[in-house]
Parts: sequence; C-alpha cells; structure tokens
Amino acid sequence: MDPIIEPKVLRGFRDSLPRTELLRKKIRNTLEREFTLFGFVPIDTPALEYSEILLGKGGGETDKQIYRFLDHGKRDIALRFDLTVPFARFMARYSGEIILPFKRYHIAKVWRGENTQRGRYREFTQIDFDIVGVDSASADFEILMVMQRSFTALGVKKFKIHFSHRELLKEFLKNYGLEMNYVSILRIIDKTKKIGKAKVKDLLTELCAASQADDILEFIKIEKNDSLTLNKMADALDPDIEAFRRIDEIFKCIEECGLSEYFSFDPSITRGLDYYTGLVYETFLMDLPEIGSVCSGGRYNNLASLYTREKLPGVGSSIGLDRLISALEELKLSDPVEEGSNLIILFLDDSLLAAYQKMAAQLREAGLSVDVFPQKKKLAVQFNYAEKRTIPLALIYGETEHKKGVVTLKDLRTRKSYENLKLENAINTALELLRS
Amino acid sequence: MDPIIEPKVLRGFRDSLPRTELLRKKIRNTLEREFTLFGFVPIDTPALEYSEILLGKGGGETDKQIYRFLDHGKRDIALRFDLTVPFARFMARYSGEIILPFKRYHIAKVWRGENTQRGRYREFTQIDFDIVGVDSASADFEILMVMQRSFTALGVKKFKIHFSHRELLKEFLKNYGLEMNYVSILRIIDKTKKIGKAKVKDLLTELCAASQADDILEFIKIEKNDSLTLNKMADALDPDIEAFRRIDEIFKCIEECGLSEYFSFDPSITRGLDYYTGLVYETFLMDLPEIGSVCSGGRYNNLASLYTREKLPGVGSSIGLDRLISALEELKLSDPVEEGSNLIILFLDDSLLAAYQKMAAQLREAGLSVDVFPQKKKLAVQFNYAEKRTIPLALIYGETEHKKGVVTLKDLRTRKSYENLKLENAINTALELLRS
Repeated sequence: MDPIIEPKVLRGFRDSLPRTELLRKKIRNTLEREFTLFGFVPIDTPALEYSEILLGKGGGETDKQIYRFLDHGKRDIALRFDLTVPFARFMARYSGEIILPFKRYHIAKVWRGENTQRGRYREFTQIDFDIVGVDSASADFEILMVMQRSFTALGVKKFKIHFSHRELLKEFLKNYGLEMNYVSILRIIDKTKKIGKAKVKDLLTELCAASQADDILEFIKIEKNDSLTLNKMADALDPDIEAFRRIDEIFKCIEECGLSEYFSFDPSITRGLDYYTGLVYETFLMDLPEIGSVCSGGRYNNLASLYTREKLPGVGSSIGLDRLISALEELKLSDPVEEGSNLIILFLDDSLLAAYQKMAAQLREAGLSVDVFPQKKKLAVQFNYAEKRTIPLALIYGETEHKKGVVTLKDLRTRKSYENLKLENAINTALELLRS
Repeated sequence: MDPIIEPKVLRGFRDSLPRTELLRKKIRNTLEREFTLFGFVPIDTPALEYSEILLGKGGGETDKQIYRFLDHGKRDIALRFDLTVPFARFMARYSGEIILPFKRYHIAKVWRGENTQRGRYREFTQIDFDIVGVDSASADFEILMVMQRSFTALGVKKFKIHFSHRELLKEFLKNYGLEMNYVSILRIIDKTKKIGKAKVKDLLTELCAASQADDILEFIKIEKNDSLTLNKMADALDPDIEAFRRIDEIFKCIEECGLSEYFSFDPSITRGLDYYTGLVYETFLMDLPEIGSVCSGGRYNNLASLYTREKLPGVGSSIGLDRLISALEELKLSDPVEEGSNLIILFLDDSLLAAYQKMAAQLREAGLSVDVFPQKKKLAVQFNYAEKRTIPLALIYGETEHKKGVVTLKDLRTRKSYENLKLENAINTALELLRS
C-alpha cells in the first residue's frame, strides 16, 4: 500500500467547515445589504500583483511579512496584504472611467506571513468601504453611519465609535515646536489603549520634556462629555481651525440622526499609519474592550499618489471579518446557523426513486430545501442521519403510501406524524411546521 | 516630483469593476440558492497549501502551471489550482467529524500560470458541488438535476447535459482486448467534439487497428434517440452490467421529473481525467456550442485516496464562473445589473446637511438605497452625477422646502416633479415610482 500524505494545512491557515462558512456568508450578506442601502458598489482585484505595486517605492526590504516570489516568467509578484493598496492602484488605473465621488466596498482575502505565536492568521478576510473623490463632512459622517448601522444590523447593541481629527494634535504640537515629531508622537499616542498612560508618557519623554508630555496627555484625555473635551481643545488651539468646523458638522449629523449613544469624541485616537490626514476612528465593543478596535479608518487626502498625479481625497473604514466573527461568537451574538435542509425524503423502496426525486422537486418549488436520502438503508440509519444534520422534517413514502397515493410527514423535533396527506397538503403542513 | 508607478495588473489577471462584480454576485446568489434547496452546504479552504498536498506524490516536476514557491519558513507551498484536490484533503482531515453522505459546494478562486495567448486567465473562479460518501443513482441524478436547475435559474433555456458511463467503454474495449489502452483511448474520444471524428480516428489507429477504430467510433455515435443509442450499446455488451441499470434508473428520474429535453445520452463523453469511474457529463449551450462544456463532472470511486485509507466514493460537477459569465453576456442573458442607488438627496444648503443625513436614514429604513450628494455643488453637476450613475430619483430639499416642511421628489427618467410632499408621502411615491 502506498503511504498516505498527511492531510494537514499550513500553520496560520484554516479550513472553513459548513457551520462557520454559513455564518461568514450570513455576516457578509448583512453587511452588503447595509453598504447597498448607502449606495456603495462592490469591486474586486487580483490576489496577485506586481510586488512593485504592492510594496511601493521603498518596497525592497521593507515587508518581510509579504508572500512574494518569482512567477514562471520571472516576474516579481506578491499576494496582496491589504485591500487599500490594490484599491489605490485600481483608482489610478480607472481614473478616467469611474465617476467621482465613488463609493466602493471590497470583501476579500488578504495574506500576511505574520507570526502565528500571537494567535494571528496568515490568511484573513478584510471588509473595506471608502468614499473617494470628495473631502466633506457629509462623506465623513456617512462612513461613520455605515459603521454604526453595520454593527446594529449584526445585533451588537453595546459598541462605541471613538473618533478624533488629526489636525488637532498637529496644531497642538506646533504650539510646542514639536511638529517635526508629529508622526512619532501620534504613533505613541495610538498605543494608549494598549499600554496605558504611564508607558505612553515614558515614550513621549524620549521625544520631549516631561512637562510637555504631561500637557500632551492632558490634551488627549476624554473629559466628562464630548463638549467638555472639545472645549478644552478649543482653549488650547485657535478655535477657528477647519478641524473644529468639521467635527461640529459631524456632531450635528450624529445628533439629528439620534445616534449620540454610539459615538464618543476621543483625542487619544490617532491611528498608526501616517496616511491619514483628517478624521480618524476606531470601534470598540463595550463587552469586549480587550480585543481592541473591530472597525477603524479615517480620512486621507491622497489615495493613489504612488500611481497617478490625480489627487484623490477620500474617507474609509475597514473591518477584519475573522476577528469580528470571534467577537460575535464570544458575545453569543452569532445565532447558530441552520446547517441542515428543511426536510428529508426517506428512501424506503428502490422502485420509488424517481417518485422521490419528483416529490423533492415539487417541495423545492415551494421554497423548501430538501434532501433525498440517497439509497435504501435501515430506517434507523436514515433517522440518525437526519438527526445529526438537524433536519426537522421527514417525508415517508413507501409501498403502502404509494398504493394509497399519500405521504406521511413526520416532525422529527416533536416525533409527531401527519399521515395520509396528499403531497400538496404535506407541503403546506411542512411550511406551517417550519414557521412555528 | 517622484516618478509614479504604472498602475498595471499582471497579464492574465483582471480587476472587476462594479458592473461586473454585481453580475458575479447575482449569479453566485442564484446558484447558491439552488444548492441550498438541494441541501448542499458551503465550505472553504486556504488559497495556499503545502505543494505536496496539491501535487500529490508525482508532484515534483509535473505541473509547470502552478504558482509554487518557498515561504519565509522555507516551506514548499503553492496556490490551489482547482477545488477538487483541496476538497479531497479536507475530507481526509475531517473524516471523523463530517456526517456522510456529505453535500458540499465551494465557490472560490483558483490560480494557474496558463498560457494567456489562448485567451486563458490565470486567476478564475470555480464553482464545485459534490455528494460524497455514497454510490447511488439517486446521488448521480441529484447532481444532474442541480445542473439542470442551475442553468434554468440563470435564465438559460437552450442547453443540454450530455452524459455517459465510463464502464460501457471499458467493457467494450475488453471485447477487443484493448483494456490496457483504456485511459489513452478515452482521452482521445474526449476530444471528439473539439477535433472531429476524422482526427479522432487517426489518433485511435495509433493504438489499434483501423477496423477497431471504426468500431469504437460506431459505438460512441449518438443515434436518433437515447433508446436507440442504448440499445446499440446493449447489443455490443453484456446487457446485465451494472452501468446499464444505473443509466436506466437515471432515465426514470429524468422522465418522472419531466426533464427529458435537457438530457442526452452521449457515449462520446468520457472526460479527460483518469479519476472518474462511472457517470460522466458535460453541458452545452445550444446557441453557443463552440465554447464547449460549461459544467462538467462525474462519479469517482475514491476521492481522497492520497490522504486517507477511508474510501470516499462520490459524484460532483464544476462550473467555471468566468466562462459562464462570458457565455451569458454573449447570449444577452445577463440583465444589466443596476449599479446606482434608488435615490439621491441633492445637497443644496450647507446648513441642511444634518437634515439630509436624517432623511437618508429614514428612506433607507423603507428599504431604499440612498446617496446623499456629499457637498454643495451646482445643481447641474449633481444632476449630471445622478444621470451617469443611472440613479432614477432625486429628492430636493432647499431653503424653501425647509421652511414649508416639505420635499420635492423628482423622477429623473421622466423629468416629472412631485412637489410639496411630506417625507412619508415622498417615500411612498418613491417606492411606487420604482415599482413602475
């Protein structure tokens, strides 16, 4: 006998069994419905791109996490590691065709050779949505509202979207002559929720005086309510700067739409990437704060500068589907998805196969999902199969029923039988039983 | 100014613009609905696997088309080139967990470094569905019926599923002592529809006598109807062989379900892979025969023998989504998918932004997909945007309307305006206009 190959998967990769895959589909459908209601449309891009495109100019050595190799034609190619870079390339390529403002979403897998020690996966699904071609409070708010609607549609009740505006920190640092350290400082502040204020202060004092670090920490502190936080910041800055106007407009929208409970103005939100230029935000599940943000993003003033001279401002957000699913499961918010079909036709007699298949077709016409048990086996085996797959109903049609031209419907949950039914009546009874 | 990177994609790869992506989603949804009605459940597997898994034992040199490389940990890995091999590995891995018979579908991308000269793509989407763990006529027919239902659900009227059974050819060749050439001969016959009978005969005569080649060609010819074809074959073989019983049962199901017009018994169907052991089939669009089969498969008696000692018989079929879409487009069977939202709220006054966003929320509650134009611009610009995105309705709410507490609804298709409406009335009017 030949030795067999062990059917293992690569570390950091996962199969998706039906129960998980059905849940993934359900969540995707829920989110896609929200995106569509807001006028977003889907796109897709290749999994493989030229490494030059994905890595940009600095590319060469930078990202050890990327799956990069030479193809048969010795082209230097790589698997995409996020959906933002391919989207930038996409917008540059179709800039003549696409009508701006453009609202797109993209749900797709990305790959990163991350260290799996930290419970990270190397293949995961990103859900990105962006509005490109406009810099306005309306677009900023729309992304925030899609986020709010999405989590509500997923059944999450207790969540909060924390947001800030990067200009405020930038202006604040100018007062101290620290603007040259702006990116380093915002990266440190970005860690506040993870490492705590004390450690942030330690890091800041490597870049500025201890008293300045204290001032920065005071500046990014959330006060009792959003107005107090904003007032404090307005006192420290020129209250006429554009960022305040933008924040004010966004708050008006939040209030008018009755969504105040879902938002919190939080100057400690900065996001790590130097890419963002305006609004930035993160979303926290109040019953699961330790997992960090489940949906984050911000405003950028130029999406595709590596690939085109056209200036493309935009605002967008991103959800990691895998982390979201873990969170929903932990919060018991993911209803068990029904895996089995609605009804099974038991196989009692070989000569009745064609009749079983025809009945199945008629039941499916009525919208029922139907299994025909695929061969004659002991009834106990067939019932056992139905039970394991949690199929609620069975249709019994043997020699006796065949002679009488009737069927028996059995509710496998209650063990109750409905005998001597014409098929149409059995269909109606089945539909009723499934509704109950 | 920095030079820009040309935003190109790899040859053989494609971006999917919203119009295409919406069509892909629609087709996927249609097919998934059919699969679900038949009790199939979805799975997914990683895009990357150990090369050993994907290539099997002979692996080493065999497949130059595969994207294969070493990862950061020097593991020999590759991108999947079909969904069958990963499914075999999957079944071996979860054999203890999965309840048999198992009906799964899998819709996912696969990658092959094929020669793009022939109009082939290097990234494409496969749709596979299989019933594993049983060898029965019922399962065979169920796959055939899923195929029939799928094409009907996609709006294709004129298609035919050609099927045969490999045992018939095998038995026939035994009569001539040609069984050792069984696989080579079936591979030649498999080319009949592509290269024609004359060339097939030339190839056959390299393996057998010219008279034998004539006999083989006569044996695989379709007669005036299925019965005549089958009778001819039964005359040439022992009519008691199992394959005839299986075919007979399948025909009974086809007839009982009223599907005869969609099926044709065709002994020239053999499929190229040596993997199949029973029923084999291909699907042809009668208005587009030149593109070849759009959905093919067959019965195999052991899915996962490389990875497990457990014997897993099964039957399955596969659709190439990209070729299917080209075909539907060529047949004008793909309705244009609406890309734009149902309604746009025009942006007339900065002070009304929050009101626009609230109205949008209310309209979405009613199930309408709604764009808010994201900033104040000339009306001509906003109407132009709506027209380009084929948005049918516009809601107008400026200073005048605001004072009166009403809105104006405009049907952009007919240019008709509905003025002085309360918002609830505008919603109802919009829903009516969209239905018309």
